[in-house]
Formats: sequence, structure tokens, C-alpha cells
Amino acid sequence: MEFLEILRKKRDKEPLTREELQFFANAAADGSVPDYQLSAMLMAMYLNGLSDRETADLTLAMAASGDTADLSGIDGIKGDKHSTGGVGDKTTLIVAPVAASCGVKMAKMSGRGLGHTGGTLDKLESIPGFQAELSRERFLEVVNETGLCVVGAAGGLCPADKTLYALRDVTETVSSIPLIASSIMSKKLAGGADCIVLDVKCGSGAFMKTETEAKTLARAMVEIGKRVGRRVAAVITNMDLPLGSAVGNAVEVQEAVAVLNGKGPDDLRAVALTLASTLLYLCGKGDKAACEAMAQDAIASGKALQALERMVEAQGGDSRYIREPDRFPQANVRYVLTSPQRGYIAAMNAEQIGHACVLLGAGRRTKADKIDPSAGVLLAKKTGDFVEAGEPLATLLCASESLLPEAKRAFLGALRFSDVPPAPEPLILGTVE
Amino acid sequence: MEFLEILRKKRDKEPLTREELQFFANAAADGSVPDYQLSAMLMAMYLNGLSDRETADLTLAMAASGDTADLSGIDGIKGDKHSTGGVGDKTTLIVAPVAASCGVKMAKMSGRGLGHTGGTLDKLESIPGFQAELSRERFLEVVNETGLCVVGAAGGLCPADKTLYALRDVTETVSSIPLIASSIMSKKLAGGADCIVLDVKCGSGAFMKTETEAKTLARAMVEIGKRVGRRVAAVITNMDLPLGSAVGNAVEVQEAVAVLNGKGPDDLRAVALTLASTLLYLCGKGDKAACEAMAQDAIASGKALQALERMVEAQGGDSRYIREPDRFPQANVRYVLTSPQRGYIAAMNAEQIGHACVLLGAGRRTKADKIDPSAGVLLAKKTGDFVEAGEPLATLLCASESLLPEAKRAFLGALRFSDVPPAPEPLILGTVE
Repeated sequence: MEFLEILRKKRDKEPLTREELQFFANAAADGSVPDYQLSAMLMAMYLNGLSDRETADLTLAMAASGDTADLSGIDGIKGDKHSTGGVGDKTTLIVAPVAASCGVKMAKMSGRGLGHTGGTLDKLESIPGFQAELSRERFLEVVNETGLCVVGAAGGLCPADKTLYALRDVTETVSSIPLIASSIMSKKLAGGADCIVLDVKCGSGAFMKTETEAKTLARAMVEIGKRVGRRVAAVITNMDLPLGSAVGNAVEVQEAVAVLNGKGPDDLRAVALTLASTLLYLCGKGDKAACEAMAQDAIASGKALQALERMVEAQGGDSRYIREPDRFPQANVRYVLTSPQRGYIAAMNAEQIGHACVLLGAGRRTKADKIDPSAGVLLAKKTGDFVEAGEPLATLLCASESLLPEAKRAFLGALRFSDVPPAPEPLILGTVE
Repeated sequence: MEFLEILRKKRDKEPLTREELQFFANAAADGSVPDYQLSAMLMAMYLNGLSDRETADLTLAMAASGDTADLSGIDGIKGDKHSTGGVGDKTTLIVAPVAASCGVKMAKMSGRGLGHTGGTLDKLESIPGFQAELSRERFLEVVNETGLCVVGAAGGLCPADKTLYALRDVTETVSSIPLIASSIMSKKLAGGADCIVLDVKCGSGAFMKTETEAKTLARAMVEIGKRVGRRVAAVITNMDLPLGSAVGNAVEVQEAVAVLNGKGPDDLRAVALTLASTLLYLCGKGDKAACEAMAQDAIASGKALQALERMVEAQGGDSRYIREPDRFPQANVRYVLTSPQRGYIAAMNAEQIGHACVLLGAGRRTKADKIDPSAGVLLAKKTGDFVEAGEPLATLLCASESLLPEAKRAFLGALRFSDVPPAPEPLILGTVE
């Protein structure tokens, strides 16, 4: 097969066969086609699009381009959950234990934070002793013992996606629905789960800024699932403002534990329960009402919290931090940021708040940056709240006062005030099944 | 300026400014933007196109990306002629001396053959002693003394085009009218002439296979000229079959000299005279009828032939080969290929005949190949002619009989026979001014 002929076909809007998409994915994985040809193909795909069938074939080809997780050693139905990335998004720490305590096996590979969005592994690693890198055998053992395990994605997973993702980043071909959908889904397929719930974030803190884009992406990913024989559903959730009140690492674990204790912010609980019950439904645990009740009961009964405790322990972490979350060391500096004016908070740009947290040490600008687990932000007011001048808006947490000025500016720059209350926005914009 | 922002704009069909196109051309010239970003841009340009204004700005930017010929040392109006490449196309060897003998200064940079199309330099170098590489000073001197000079393009000319042309070749982005037009015209602009006549070839032996494509390219190049203040006209000529009867190097010089002696094939003379008179008209030598008469007289009077003789001599060549073209050494093998059947020649694929000549040693498959100046083909029959079985079709010229079998197959594969004569095709399909 000739790569240039495949490139010509896509340039001329001719459909690519499964074999041609496999050739492309394998070439990206093994480096047998030079970058300048791959990037010309990515631009042609960006501009001429991919059909649903081509997208599914490309996704399967990327999933098959490297190692795939063999979960056959795990008994029972395997579930997975993925978020397209947000600010204050700690739902995995709630959804996974809820689903596990309801009998779904959550063998989850997760990522680290980069830029304004956080990563589940960074959050879990704020628990002393927690190990995100386990051997394959130990990974399966922990899932079988405790019902859930969250580890770093293995290095050999989806090498085609690694190459293409890096190239897309530097050739303005990131924002293509079929390319985003195939990138996400190839990793999920390689992860081996039977049922996958997707949290497609939408708004200022998300990659998808509009509801239309988010729905299109959600449909594309669910369509891939249908075509490759996995049960996939997507929930589209609001990321115009951070989810919950805590943004950071240790503070997000604390907030997730609060929800598992029946407390915590309403928005976070609502999103987490919707995702969990959707996943239970996909896994055949009952009708939708039954799955909702099951998820709520997993929290009310304390079973979900116990599942998280057992997982942390099995992964070497000190589970007392889950039982007594006040144990997490406090940040050196706790600065109460007060409002410069009186009025309603009309909008808070979630991406900029995520950026303020990076400035405080809670995130990474580049992959090499180290994270301060205690750093972050605790929001006192959110979009729609009324605030008096001088009233606290948020507490900024960091290791040194020198980090404050820039972070304060970034945080305040994210806010828009108004004399009238903003129109309320729905938290959950829809579900695609 | 950020290259990625320029790439995003072209991706999103936003017009690029002159400065952005300069940034792109300079980046291609100096290597400051990696190939994988340039190739993504080329694909975006291929698929989203360039406006006439963008094409002209890109052309100027590419022309300015390296050295430009300073022809201010030449007295009088400077003319140039360019062909998009064909088989048996020796018109430069006629047009340049005709124009020079009518007072136009022809300071011409030319190329070598690659693939099925020949190059003027290769043809001239079949004359013993001929030097295509002259110093800049000597180049201008020869033009001032003899009215014409044909040299190899200087290495530093249009480096942006060099990079982009090489990348287009391996990313399926060659066949884009604005990219072809800007590539050709940037070299012509850098060449410094005031008036440029373009021979846009059309048909099986040309890059442009259809009349519509050829006309679109012709219009794009003339439009560039208009926008950058050069006088440019394009003649669209038939390349469904080779031009003239000789295809090769020495044999093409012989055929061009025959035309300059008032003999030679009609089609070659007609195309050469049209190009020459169009150039004279562009150079302000009179109205169209006067320029046609002037070109014809240049041949009839022998002045054009003398101009070629003087140029060959000034460039170190043995001008006796022009006066007595029988001096050219004959090929070792002269094989008369006879017709396998009776009938009309309905079509002769010019590209395949060019390919047969490459097999005989008259052309190059790769840049490193050496050329046999005596090799080539002399056509006895052309499209529309009737032939009996066993009657000669052509004489194949080469150095060794071992080259014959493959070349014979290639030549015969180029022919299509028919019981009825084919519809005659016009030789000159139009002029764009």
C-alpha cells in the first residue's frame, strides 16, 4: 500500500478503506511515514472530515496500533469513565467507587493534569504512599480484590495516537470532531472496558466551548462505541464554571470524600450521580430509576466510601486520609481573596481559574513541572451568587506569598460582575446513548 | 508573527495578508518552520485555495526569498519565455533567437529535463563546448553582445520555491493551480524580465491534461503578472502528441535549426512563431500583425539563425554545429520501428513517448542520471496519419541494442490505432493576455 495514494484519496474526498486507515495508524505508530506526510493527512482529514465508518475504523486501528489491556483476568463486567477535561473535575473519585460498590469492575487508566485541567492521578497522589504505577498483575489483583483500581496509562498504549496527537498540537488540526473522538475512544478501547460513560464538558473551562460542539463530539464517540461493539453513553455537562468549590489536588480529594460522605457541593454530587447511574445502566444493573437509586444508596450506605478506602490501601496509600480528610497538610499560605466590588457574579471563566491554580502550584505548564499537592483554590462564591465589596470570593492556597500577586490577578480576571443576576444555566445539558 | 496563527487562518478560509505570506515564504526559505507545519499549510492551501491577490503576494514573496537577477546592466527591454514542459518542445531554441534578432534582450535562465519532459540546457549541451554555467558578469555581457543567453538557474534563486516544491511532491499537493502558478511565476519574476510569454502545454504529454485546467493556470499566471507590474501573456498549446518530429537532445537542436532555416515541421514552426510574435507584441514592437510579420522575417532573413550562432559561440560552443547540423554525431543504434498493424494513428500518448526516450538514454529518471545527447526518437508518423502494417513509425536512437526492447514496448504502448481518422485537434487552443 502506498501512503501517498491514501493521502490523495482523502484530499479528493474519496472514502478510505479500513485497511488504508490501518496503514495510516500503523505508519504513525512505527514512524515509517515521515511527519510531513502525516501532517498533510491530518490537515486533509481536518478539512474534508471522516465519515462515521471511517472514524470508527481509524479508532480501532489506533487502539490496535500498540498494546491493549487484557482484562480477561477480571471477573464480571468491566466499566470505565472518561472526562474530556475540566476544572475542579473530581468526579472519577466518586463515580468509580460508587460503580465498584455496585458490582462493576473499574479497571481504570487515568492521566495527569496539563495546562488548566487537572488529572485524577495527581489528585490521588496527594495521598501519602499512593502508587499510580502498578504491574499488570497487581493492577488486575487490586480490581478483583477491591472492585476498582486507578493507574497511569501504560506507555505502549495507542502509540499511533501519541504521534498524531503531538502532530495535531503543532499543525492546528486539534479541533476536529472525528480526530478528537478517535483519539479519546482509541485509548478507551485499548483500556479494555465493556461499558464506558463519557463526561463531555462544555463551556469556558472545556475544550468544547459550545453545546453544539459538545453534542457533536458526544454523538461521534457514542457512534464509535456502537460500531465497535462497546456500550457507550455520553453525558454533556456544564463547564462554564468550575465543578464544586475546590480546585487543586488534596482539596479535590477532600471534596470528593465529602460527597461520598453525603455532603459536599450539590453540582458535584449531581454530575457524579448522573455519570455513575448512567454507567450502572450501561452495565445492565437495572432500569434508569433503579440505577439512580442504586448509586444514591451506594453513597448513603457508605459502601462507596469503603470501596475508595480499600482501593487507596491496596495501592499503597494511607487510607486514614480518606476516613479523616482533615489529615491532609494545609497549604503554607491561605489567602482570603475579597471582592473588589458589589454585585452578582455574572460569569467565572473556568479556564482562567484553572490557570490561576497552575500559578499557585496546583498544576503543570509543561510535562516536567512538579505539582504542589496542597495548592489550589477554595471558591466561596460562584456564578449567580451576590457578593458585597470586601466579602470573601475565594481562598487561594499556595506554598509562598510570592505566588499570590499573579494568581490573584488571574483569578479576578476570570470574574465578571453584574448588577442583575445572570440567567441560570443547566448543569447537565443532555445525554447521548 | 506566529506561524500557527497563519496556518489556522488558511485552515479557516480567512484571507492571508501580504506580510503573512512573506512570513510563510521566508520560513520555507530559511527552514525556520519545520516541514510538518509547512506541509499542513500546503494541504490547507490546496484544499481552501488562494485568492488572486494572495497568489500574487505569495509569488512576490517567493521571488524575494532569495537572490534575484539584476538585469539593470542590460540595455533595452528584457524578454523571457517559459514552457510548462512538454515532449519534443524545442521552441526556446527558436523563440529566443527570433526575439533577440528583433531587438528584445533575452537573458534566460533555463532548466534541465526530468522525467518525460526535456530541458533546454540538456539540448544546448549536445553542442560541443557549450557552457550553461556562466558568471553573472559574463551572462550580462553575452546578452548585451548577442541579444540572448541561456544559462542554468542560479542556485540561490527562489529558495522558498525549492523547499515548497520538494514538499509538494511528497504530500500530494502538486496539482493546485495557485501553487503551480506561484511556483512558475516566482522564478520568472526573480529572473528579472519585463515581458514574459508563457507556453502552457495541454494534453497527454503535459502536466495540465485538460483545456480547462490549462486555461485556468494560464489565467492565474497572467493575473499574477498584472498584479505585480510585468507584461505577461500565455499561449495554450496542444501537447496531446509530441511537438515536431524529433524528441531527444541533439536531434531537437537539429530540428530547431531546420525551422530557423525556413524548414522543419509545420506544428513546431507555428507554435514557435506564435510565441515569438506574442512576446514581440508584449515588448511593444508593434501591433499583432506587425509582430507576426517581424517574427516571420527574422527567420526568412536568416537573422534569427545568426543570433543563435552568435549566442552558441559566446557561450563557448562550436557554432559550426548550428551552421552544419549534420555534424552532430549519429547514435550508435538507429532502429526503424515498423507498424504492427494497418490503420490510422488515433492517438499517441506524449508522456509515454517521453518515457520511451528516457529509456533510450535521452532523459533522466533521477537528477543524477547522465544523458546521451545522441539518443531519442524521430517520428515518421504522427496522430492522424495512416500507416500500413510494416511501414516505419519512427526511428529509435540509442547507444546500445540492449535498450531497444523496453523502449519499443513503451513507444508502441503510447499509440492507439483506428480504422477511421481521428478528429483533428487544434494546435493552439487560445491565448490569455
